[in-house]
Amino acid sequence: MKRPTIADIARRAGVSKGAVSYALNGQPGVSEATRQRIIAIAQEIGFNPNSAARALSGSTANAVGLALCRPARILGIEPFFMELISGVEAELSARSYALTLQVVADPDAEIAVYRRWWGERRVDGVFVCDLRIDDRRVPVLEELQLPAVVIGGPDHTGTLACVWADDTAALVETIEYLVALGHRRVARVGGLPDLLHTEIRTRAFTEACRRLGLTDSVTVSSDYTGEEGARATRRLLSSANRPTAIMYDNDVMAIAGLAVAQEMGLAVPNDLSIVAWDDSALCQLTHPPLTALGRDIPAYGGHAARQLLAAIEGRAIGAYQHETAHLTPRGSTAAPRLG
Amino acid sequence: MKRPTIADIARRAGVSKGAVSYALNGQPGVSEATRQRIIAIAQEIGFNPNSAARALSGSTANAVGLALCRPARILGIEPFFMELISGVEAELSARSYALTLQVVADPDAEIAVYRRWWGERRVDGVFVCDLRIDDRRVPVLEELQLPAVVIGGPDHTGTLACVWADDTAALVETIEYLVALGHRRVARVGGLPDLLHTEIRTRAFTEACRRLGLTDSVTVSSDYTGEEGARATRRLLSSANRPTAIMYDNDVMAIAGLAVAQEMGLAVPNDLSIVAWDDSALCQLTHPPLTALGRDIPAYGGHAARQLLAAIEGRAIGAYQHETAHLTPRGSTAAPRLG
Repeated sequence: MKRPTIADIARRAGVSKGAVSYALNGQPGVSEATRQRIIAIAQEIGFNPNSAARALSGSTANAVGLALCRPARILGIEPFFMELISGVEAELSARSYALTLQVVADPDAEIAVYRRWWGERRVDGVFVCDLRIDDRRVPVLEELQLPAVVIGGPDHTGTLACVWADDTAALVETIEYLVALGHRRVARVGGLPDLLHTEIRTRAFTEACRRLGLTDSVTVSSDYTGEEGARATRRLLSSANRPTAIMYDNDVMAIAGLAVAQEMGLAVPNDLSIVAWDDSALCQLTHPPLTALGRDIPAYGGHAARQLLAAIEGRAIGAYQHETAHLTPRGSTAAPRLG
Repeated sequence: MKRPTIADIARRAGVSKGAVSYALNGQPGVSEATRQRIIAIAQEIGFNPNSAARALSGSTANAVGLALCRPARILGIEPFFMELISGVEAELSARSYALTLQVVADPDAEIAVYRRWWGERRVDGVFVCDLRIDDRRVPVLEELQLPAVVIGGPDHTGTLACVWADDTAALVETIEYLVALGHRRVARVGGLPDLLHTEIRTRAFTEACRRLGLTDSVTVSSDYTGEEGARATRRLLSSANRPTAIMYDNDVMAIAGLAVAQEMGLAVPNDLSIVAWDDSALCQLTHPPLTALGRDIPAYGGHAARQLLAAIEGRAIGAYQHETAHLTPRGSTAAPRLG
């Protein structure tokens, strides 16, 4: 059977080949209704611009894109993204691919960037970070047929490829360790609540605490900033039945939490145990150094890059499971002084 | 007078127009001797590919490049680069320019990246970070006639444009403040010693201490990592005549220094005052929060981007002086307990 072409779609849709091209690339020049009809026909006849037309035309950008929808102050302070980028970079450089970076203000701006990048052939594929439940970016990327790898998942990624890690397992290991030390009142300062991985962690935390009989356990939502991490910690430590251990969804908030404990005259780890996630060099700068859940973030980025390059070549890729974060106990955790 | 063209250079050099193009773009295809001869002729007749041929041919990449020659672990932890990038980004996005990022292992790799980017028309210009004294990248960029803005300076930039700040003034203000508080034994943990701005700060520190009669003052070199910052602090605080105040050339080392003081049982600020440079959100996460020299890094990046876009348009640009870093006293500085 012959591979379907743009001409086949144009004939079926009763439009020009140019209009098909505009529609599939997310460029202006066709109405939204026509775009949807053309996309439906393309999907129906199994047209794949990535592996067929695009590759044959040789019009590759030799670049992949990363749009980050986070405020500059958070991007600047949290080591995660720069570590991820350095891992992505190492893999791309070896294949002479460039990384195009763009900081965007909101999901709409991010979607507009994808349409423009793909329409102008600025990138051959993109990485998608901070996956949400029912993420609006997923259907757009599917519609554009822009090769994409989600950094996260494995659910809610639609037909897109992803790299993910088992946060549930890492979280359960940590809670069990804290319980083994003797903690019964454990709290968690979580990340942005509408992110999928925050939701996964919150569900796992709640479930593990219930199973282990930790009735006073609580998750407080936050936004990854030190200010919010400090505020949440102050609230938790001011409560009548204050926790003896707190887990934080990033390193920055954990460090802020340590400072709040010191400010309130609580000794870490004797009065309060602290666990950070992800681990980073920041966690070893403090006194005491922080117990943390860590994984090799540059390697995670490297896997994502290899997945994306494979997708660009038109190879079928799916979900790649990265190592589960492992717990490194340091000076910030111990048996609680008070039972 | 007619604007010189590639054909003029080819005629004078007795080579093809293609060979001239290869030579000026740093592409293979001509011998090094021929390349040098062609470049000399181009400079002699005032040929400028940026404002003339390039703009007329319309072959712009609508992208600018940033090659960073720092280990991933340092890029990941130090907020400076991500803040700089976010400022650069905001300016570029508004003009529909993309930022192409590459992490390189050493200056040779960085120079190779510039030649490739320019040869393949992947970028229209580049930012140059971490300027060194007699920096080998400067003559290469001049030779390539690749529009470039050095983030640093204002000396040792050759004919390249730059954005810079007066580190000497900021440093003198800080030392005078510490002396006013009563400190007489002040130390400094400096950054990588072969970077120009480290050299400028070291010279300013030595000079200010001499002028103010601080005979025990000392600068220790470091590499911006927390490990090295901690090691240097431990050495300084173990000496017979230990300093009562330490300045650090980045926020990460200052935080590590605070942890070492706590580990050694010294109270900050009463036994030891600490000043960080540059200020960042990290400096406000600690207890006590750190006194720091700060400036608006995203704005600094924005200025650099505007300079570079002007250079790409062929406008004559020079050195842009950014605001001098200002001192924000927080809880980590006070009068010393011991004179």
